[in-house]
Amino acid sequence: MSELKVQCFSISLDGFGAGPNQSLQSPLGEGGEGLHTWFFGTRTFQRMLGDESKGTDGPDEDFAARGFANIGAWILGRNMFGPVRGPWPDESWKGWWGEEPPYHVPVYVLTHHPRAPLEMKGGTTFYFVTDGIESALAQAKKAANGKDVRLGGGVATIHEYLKAGLVDEMHLAISPVVLGSGESLFAGVDLASLGFQCVEHVPTSAATHVVLRKNPR
Amino acid sequence: MSELKVQCFSISLDGFGAGPNQSLQSPLGEGGEGLHTWFFGTRTFQRMLGDESKGTDGPDEDFAARGFANIGAWILGRNMFGPVRGPWPDESWKGWWGEEPPYHVPVYVLTHHPRAPLEMKGGTTFYFVTDGIESALAQAKKAANGKDVRLGGGVATIHEYLKAGLVDEMHLAISPVVLGSGESLFAGVDLASLGFQCVEHVPTSAATHVVLRKNPR
Repeated sequence: MSELKVQCFSISLDGFGAGPNQSLQSPLGEGGEGLHTWFFGTRTFQRMLGDESKGTDGPDEDFAARGFANIGAWILGRNMFGPVRGPWPDESWKGWWGEEPPYHVPVYVLTHHPRAPLEMKGGTTFYFVTDGIESALAQAKKAANGKDVRLGGGVATIHEYLKAGLVDEMHLAISPVVLGSGESLFAGVDLASLGFQCVEHVPTSAATHVVLRKNPR
Repeated sequence: MSELKVQCFSISLDGFGAGPNQSLQSPLGEGGEGLHTWFFGTRTFQRMLGDESKGTDGPDEDFAARGFANIGAWILGRNMFGPVRGPWPDESWKGWWGEEPPYHVPVYVLTHHPRAPLEMKGGTTFYFVTDGIESALAQAKKAANGKDVRLGGGVATIHEYLKAGLVDEMHLAISPVVLGSGESLFAGVDLASLGFQCVEHVPTSAATHVVLRKNPR
């Protein structure tokens, strides 16, 4: 059955999914790059950059690859696509990832501002959804055609889906950095009450990978 | 130089140092025992119970042993000694640890309720400090005589010392459990602004050990 999954979501050891003062120049926030060190070293990431000979194998790579396996569509919050709040600043903005984004499937972007679908190279089409998270999920699941839907973030969007009871699984990578402030994944969300338990725990020298599932058998 | 250190402080992967609904019957809160699984297996803990032949060596044991090395005094919050808030319910209450507590040095308990010092077997004496955290630290450092002072918790007490800028180092053990609610170590405290950085990261199958130091060179 098609599930909604958060995958490869990196947080600091104090629970922040992005650092403070995010901006166009610093989309991950201050110190936020350190969250993704484990991912930057993987073969999966290096393949995205075009040279997989540079990447490493091992548990970090296994989780990176799992994050793209059996994914038929993505859902992104507004800020995962564009740099500012408010109306689209410029229709020429095509997201953070250049002409050929790493999704290769339909991507549903939550926003209050309508925009025509944006077809990119390599199979990625951005659809802009203005009628809410449940609509986005229904469209994404239909497009995924039995495969899973990956929820890319950010934290505010994950919170919305968590509180609505719509997330089935979360793979988090806890990185050995302190951010101190920013967007806390755990603030205001009671994962235990929502039914989540840790079902997998794979520590590496770069990050501690945990998989949380809702109401595991 | 004598430092104030938090050591072997176990938190859930969502940042809670104790589970919800702490009580006399459940001093660690619901699900809180799972925080300490890494510690229960160590030779250091088994030695406390009287049979170190049962304990294991390795990185978990190394951190457990470091938590007691070069410690000349402890500071505990009220609830680390007694089960309820308010006046001491009964002078016969001698803490959670029986006749021979595992400290073996002076222990300064923060409280609003005066009580005469309580000398236990094995070198532990509980002193009850009613004039604040700085007084407790001064007394503890004097008693420690050049050794370090370990701050045992709980979360509220750690927060007080952190915000006062008095904590030099924290060793946290992030355990693969979800608590969902309880006492969050990171809520309301900006560790980055306080100068903390992660200087050591040792993941094991039971926990991810991180050492944070303030303004490391």
